[in-house]
Amino acid sequence: MAFGILRLPLFSLMALALMNPCTGAPDTRQRETLMRQEASRQTGGSVVLTPAELQVDAYLHKLKVKERASVPFPPSIHFFKARARIQKSPVFKLLQKMPKGGALHVHSTAMVSPEWLVRNVTYRPNCYICFTWGGSVRFLFSDGQPYPQWDCLYWQLLQSLRASMVDPAKFDKSLIQNLTLFTEDPESAYPSDDAVWARFEDAFRIISGLVTYAAVFMDYLYQSLEEFYADNVMYVEIRSGLTRTYELDGSIHDKIWSLKAYRDVSAKFSTKHPDFLGLRIILSTHRIQRVSTIKAAIKEAIEMQKNFPELIAGFDLVGREDDGRPLWYFREALSLPAELGVKLPYYFHAGETDLEGTDVDANLIDALLFNTSRIGHGYALPHHPLIKELSRKNGVAVEVCPISNQVLRLVSDFRHHPAAVLMTEGYPVVISSDDPTLFGNPGLSYDFYEAFVGIGGMRANLGTLKELAMNSIKYSSLSPHLKKKLMNMWQDKWKKFISNQKD
Amino acid sequence: MAFGILRLPLFSLMALALMNPCTGAPDTRQRETLMRQEASRQTGGSVVLTPAELQVDAYLHKLKVKERASVPFPPSIHFFKARARIQKSPVFKLLQKMPKGGALHVHSTAMVSPEWLVRNVTYRPNCYICFTWGGSVRFLFSDGQPYPQWDCLYWQLLQSLRASMVDPAKFDKSLIQNLTLFTEDPESAYPSDDAVWARFEDAFRIISGLVTYAAVFMDYLYQSLEEFYADNVMYVEIRSGLTRTYELDGSIHDKIWSLKAYRDVSAKFSTKHPDFLGLRIILSTHRIQRVSTIKAAIKEAIEMQKNFPELIAGFDLVGREDDGRPLWYFREALSLPAELGVKLPYYFHAGETDLEGTDVDANLIDALLFNTSRIGHGYALPHHPLIKELSRKNGVAVEVCPISNQVLRLVSDFRHHPAAVLMTEGYPVVISSDDPTLFGNPGLSYDFYEAFVGIGGMRANLGTLKELAMNSIKYSSLSPHLKKKLMNMWQDKWKKFISNQKD
Ligand SMILES: [Zn+2]
Ligand SMILES: [Zn+2]
Repeated sequence: MAFGILRLPLFSLMALALMNPCTGAPDTRQRETLMRQEASRQTGGSVVLTPAELQVDAYLHKLKVKERASVPFPPSIHFFKARARIQKSPVFKLLQKMPKGGALHVHSTAMVSPEWLVRNVTYRPNCYICFTWGGSVRFLFSDGQPYPQWDCLYWQLLQSLRASMVDPAKFDKSLIQNLTLFTEDPESAYPSDDAVWARFEDAFRIISGLVTYAAVFMDYLYQSLEEFYADNVMYVEIRSGLTRTYELDGSIHDKIWSLKAYRDVSAKFSTKHPDFLGLRIILSTHRIQRVSTIKAAIKEAIEMQKNFPELIAGFDLVGREDDGRPLWYFREALSLPAELGVKLPYYFHAGETDLEGTDVDANLIDALLFNTSRIGHGYALPHHPLIKELSRKNGVAVEVCPISNQVLRLVSDFRHHPAAVLMTEGYPVVISSDDPTLFGNPGLSYDFYEAFVGIGGMRANLGTLKELAMNSIKYSSLSPHLKKKLMNMWQDKWKKFISNQKD
Repeated sequence: MAFGILRLPLFSLMALALMNPCTGAPDTRQRETLMRQEASRQTGGSVVLTPAELQVDAYLHKLKVKERASVPFPPSIHFFKARARIQKSPVFKLLQKMPKGGALHVHSTAMVSPEWLVRNVTYRPNCYICFTWGGSVRFLFSDGQPYPQWDCLYWQLLQSLRASMVDPAKFDKSLIQNLTLFTEDPESAYPSDDAVWARFEDAFRIISGLVTYAAVFMDYLYQSLEEFYADNVMYVEIRSGLTRTYELDGSIHDKIWSLKAYRDVSAKFSTKHPDFLGLRIILSTHRIQRVSTIKAAIKEAIEMQKNFPELIAGFDLVGREDDGRPLWYFREALSLPAELGVKLPYYFHAGETDLEGTDVDANLIDALLFNTSRIGHGYALPHHPLIKELSRKNGVAVEVCPISNQVLRLVSDFRHHPAAVLMTEGYPVVISSDDPTLFGNPGLSYDFYEAFVGIGGMRANLGTLKELAMNSIKYSSLSPHLKKKLMNMWQDKWKKFISNQKD
């Protein structure tokens, strides 16, 4: 393996005599060998730490022991209830400072804090709001009174509405509530899988009215990068449907406009922050659609990749797997690149489900068959031993988004997250935050916290963190040249991080 | 493998071309091969079903599809809340009728329904009751007023007390509540791990006053076998500390008396029910004790095994792992048999914990090092890839007790039980009920239900059930001769079961 992770040759299992041949009893050395062998398998288990790193590791271990004794143990409860505690955690504070590499699984319309959207975007002129029949809201920027929409009859200028409010601060707070799923009492707010997914998809619709206004879009992207950068993230791969942006007069830009916006914002941001590499796009289409639509999307993706090779990483299907169509349903469309002799890398969401043994559950198999480059979530992967084995051989990393899985009700206590199985086996894993606006988990640190303290348990150590960060570079969509560049950038930051801890 | 389970040779992974060499796209046949290969790995995945069995399997699948659509899905909620629903489930009713082989993980003082203990045992003459300071009760049979005990100052004759009651039925109900953890509202009754374990250990103390009265003991054992037999269980391995039984005058029998009672009751029961093989004892000592005590217990176990080879299966340490001492602490004691050149099989409780990476978590490694014959619970095993691999090579089955794990708060939704990983990999697993009196799960059917519908998910089928039942014979402590006998008995019953379903 590249990048300085050294896989030490393990003692052969066969050569390991479990019993003392004389007394028949095990001895301490055999036991330690076994423990060391097992530990060496886990994520980061064969990372060799420098003396300085070992010191930080020992300190971190002490912090973890304390953390484990806290009641309630934050990873054992819902993130929405734990967040305030986590913010005070010394482990979390250390993770914030740690250079975490890249965020490889985030969606384009849910990258900034909802506070920024309300306090910045909704305060801009020409912003209209409408309250829907279903008790939700919609936003639209317009130079005149917008037309009624099917679920939205009456649009009000937000500026006037706010001016008429007795308590605008309270009103803004209620707007923030609409933009995020974050709440003090998640159990009663989202009593079922369907309830949380309904809110989830509605929130996307609310946000999109704000961020797809062309003038906002550029600022929105820039602010998104700011928030990742502030959390010591150095690179982002964004799943985007390239929703077309609009102007005040209702005119609409084409997708190329959006692509160029991504490219220009990325360049501008990297120029200002030389320790940030930039962003790439994974073109994404909703899995609710027809085969012909997906075919068209794939053709378009091939075209875009040809024209923006630095920017376009590949293709994905998004949306709730349990409701949408399985990958196999789209096989004709997904085979197109191979038939055309073109390489369009796939980054499929797959196995974000507990409907095991159903059609949905086959997505993991199909992701493999269609040669996916990574697996988004892969929550069900530990229940697919053969697919796990083959995917590992193909170097297919899993993008684990702990907080997303909990909010969308796949797991309640992080110690029981199936990625623990992957991590103990050293299956390649990267950590990401999926939809920070919606889950209240900006950057990567909150998800690293749940992965490191909860999923990884007491076994996870500084080597684990190091390998997780390096995985995000190694398994990124970047060219070998850029991977090397990013790895060097990361190593510089890492060294500084370690020596700062020592002081 | 013996007993008719045929492991079909799998297609070599290497030989499996995932892609069509011409178009580069996967085809249906490749996909089906992959799915079949994966399915063949799971528990029961290579069991070849007869045409009659295939019919039952198809019927069972239909029932499962319906079951999955029910809201709430019973395996997703607490067993105490789900039990009434489960009792009405057609899948459950089928599991009740199914011959399940042996129950390999049950504890001697918690085998009967609490109703029988109250309605039969507490109605016997000379039964005294005492209410402790801590709000619990104790029972004692005595021919005179019992002496005060440290937490129990005043003993009352139960017969007189009951006669003075306005509502004896209500009183009996409250007594039942003391003997079991079963309650409508488990979340508020047992808000923490410590709370549920405290009630758990108190319940054992309450029960033991009733069942260790010599005259009751024999009836108790017989009734226990009745309840397993009624649920189509054909053999039981009982973890027992051989608590000494007492007489009305306070005199106490030795442990040999208890052993003989087990032997005689077993013989009597099997004579009356020729389709029941009998019982064996796994001698068990509480892990809270000193090394010297465990040493003495092991010596005693060796002696007993010599004198009652048919009855004594081996040795185990019981009690909450998170509180007690790890196996390694007792290494001197546990090495005794090897040092003496004697074979005392171990059946260790290990990995009944989510304290991963701690001393407690090392119990799985140590169970392996001390050559355990099976693992009790092994809840944490999927997080120990090396131990899992080595244990599998050694043919060490895991005794999965789903309902016990849920009541003792290791898991809330059975679809997330780690045994799902073991089952998809075909790791040898048996299903058991641990403490039916305490959990309200008599026999094995409730635990089979949670394992089959919840843990196994839609993938688990009749082959899975067949292998689980056969595993309980294959991995029992029985001699090869008796295994064969039990397997034949089971096969007869299984055939009848299948042909009854067809009608
Ligand atoms: Zn996603
Ligand atoms: Zn047990």
